[in-house]
Amino acid sequence: MEGSEVLRGFTIERILSSDERTKYISVLGRYSGQDGRSVVILRRRHFEQSTLPRLLSPETHAELHFRNDIYAKYTGMIPQDLGEVSIDIINPATDKHISKYEDQTYHMVVETPEVYKLIVRPYIDSIPASRIQWVYNILEKKAEADRLIFEDADPETGFLMHPDLKWDERQIEALYCIAMVKRRDIKSLRDLRRHHLPLLHNILKNGCKALSMKYGISAEDLRVFCHYQPSYYHLHVHFVHIRCDIGMGMAIGKAHLLSDIIGNIELLKDYYARCTLEMSLGEKDPLAARIMTHLPWLRELGYQQEFYPE
Amino acid sequence: MEGSEVLRGFTIERILSSDERTKYISVLGRYSGQDGRSVVILRRRHFEQSTLPRLLSPETHAELHFRNDIYAKYTGMIPQDLGEVSIDIINPATDKHISKYEDQTYHMVVETPEVYKLIVRPYIDSIPASRIQWVYNILEKKAEADRLIFEDADPETGFLMHPDLKWDERQIEALYCIAMVKRRDIKSLRDLRRHHLPLLHNILKNGCKALSMKYGISAEDLRVFCHYQPSYYHLHVHFVHIRCDIGMGMAIGKAHLLSDIIGNIELLKDYYARCTLEMSLGEKDPLAARIMTHLPWLRELGYQQEFYPE
Repeated sequence: MEGSEVLRGFTIERILSSDERTKYISVLGRYSGQDGRSVVILRRRHFEQSTLPRLLSPETHAELHFRNDIYAKYTGMIPQDLGEVSIDIINPATDKHISKYEDQTYHMVVETPEVYKLIVRPYIDSIPASRIQWVYNILEKKAEADRLIFEDADPETGFLMHPDLKWDERQIEALYCIAMVKRRDIKSLRDLRRHHLPLLHNILKNGCKALSMKYGISAEDLRVFCHYQPSYYHLHVHFVHIRCDIGMGMAIGKAHLLSDIIGNIELLKDYYARCTLEMSLGEKDPLAARIMTHLPWLRELGYQQEFYPE
Repeated sequence: MEGSEVLRGFTIERILSSDERTKYISVLGRYSGQDGRSVVILRRRHFEQSTLPRLLSPETHAELHFRNDIYAKYTGMIPQDLGEVSIDIINPATDKHISKYEDQTYHMVVETPEVYKLIVRPYIDSIPASRIQWVYNILEKKAEADRLIFEDADPETGFLMHPDLKWDERQIEALYCIAMVKRRDIKSLRDLRRHHLPLLHNILKNGCKALSMKYGISAEDLRVFCHYQPSYYHLHVHFVHIRCDIGMGMAIGKAHLLSDIIGNIELLKDYYARCTLEMSLGEKDPLAARIMTHLPWLRELGYQQEFYPE
């Protein structure tokens, strides 16, 4: 579907989330004649440098709000093509999609190795493999093959690099790419051990190299990190331009720098089996529910004692 | 001035700052026939709820980028009036205006224990003590005594808690407090060893307790962390509401969760003497200059080799 057909017959059910600061809104709705529901995400685009000469010209029609001494405030009607937005559509959307895009409250939770073994790992293992079919589509080049930036086919240390959905590849300062590892046995950070060091070094070195060759960006201008908890449990690494402020996505309690991960494992081969990881969890995250129900006896075990001063 | 006249004859000199996340850009330029320079600030508008029925209708023309399973990505050409932006103009702009709107470039730098010993520590030791006289004024209650939230006077494990200057104490969701340790021999994270664990546990436990008693906030709604590099070298801990998005201030490469710090030291007593810390450094930071001048021979030592693929 293309053009004016894409949104024809779409009716809005409710707004899932809306962020004034980043100019982002996600909407739940239905297409007439369809059973399933859809999530539609709208994002304003950043101002592209190449378009500034047109934006800051008589092509822009400015309406004065007020003037005070040297300061003046206007509303600008800009050329239509410079007002383009990004639209992501998930159709049909599962309840998990819907709750992922719905605003929610976050809490800090401390994951000890015991909490991981007793609660988090069983939860991860309970997730149906079909949930990451889209990842396997990418690894098998059944999807997004045309967007492939780099591939290292080695079954042990190989990975594929693609631009992330969030990036439209227009502005270097918004660069957001994802490296997905070829091997399918690493669910997350917690599985990483010393024998994975060649894989991690390879992703860091050749991931940066691939991006510098394709986009001319230097490694020192990239934040290279993993998420814990990740949104899906197949090891992947985020490459994001240092000037791209992604808020929670690069915050402590969620993001872990790859070079720090490598350093930790070099320091202690089973660091990620033994370390305590504090993380921010959304209330609607099914994992949060599991941890909360276990908290009473976890506290008896001394879990997070300093976090619950009685 | 109104309409298409407002930006007529404006020529762009350079971009002062640009923020992809908030869709903000400030530009320095001149109007032909004027001596002074002007700063023009462009901001995208958020999506107004009332305009959603038009945005999500055939009035929006969508061009497909790609589809993968249930996910599809489009560029949307929306009605021109829904693409309006806000424009602020400062004319003429002084140098002070210009530097206010100009931002500095950050780079990721990997601090190995050697880099710390050879460059960072000497830099820290070279900073005149007078720079943190204001900290000692607080510790001695010669300053901000009226804003004191909590004090533990123990010379070994004690600390003082104050609201940060960034917080006006009005909105709980903007809560930002600082715990400053009594003892004066801990410059930063790098100095922390196992014998400091009682101090760190005390700050985490009683800092959270003090804030829950004064503001009724729960420990699980607080991000508790240190900065590395910090803005001043006397150990202090940030307590920030989890919903308060402070961007770089809570980002990896700058912030380190206190409970992770404690966990690392419990795992390895000299963790912070031996670990590698990747950090974001601003170009205007005097430490950045020192590290950059040393980079050539640091690279010869293999420093950041994976970061500089030759």
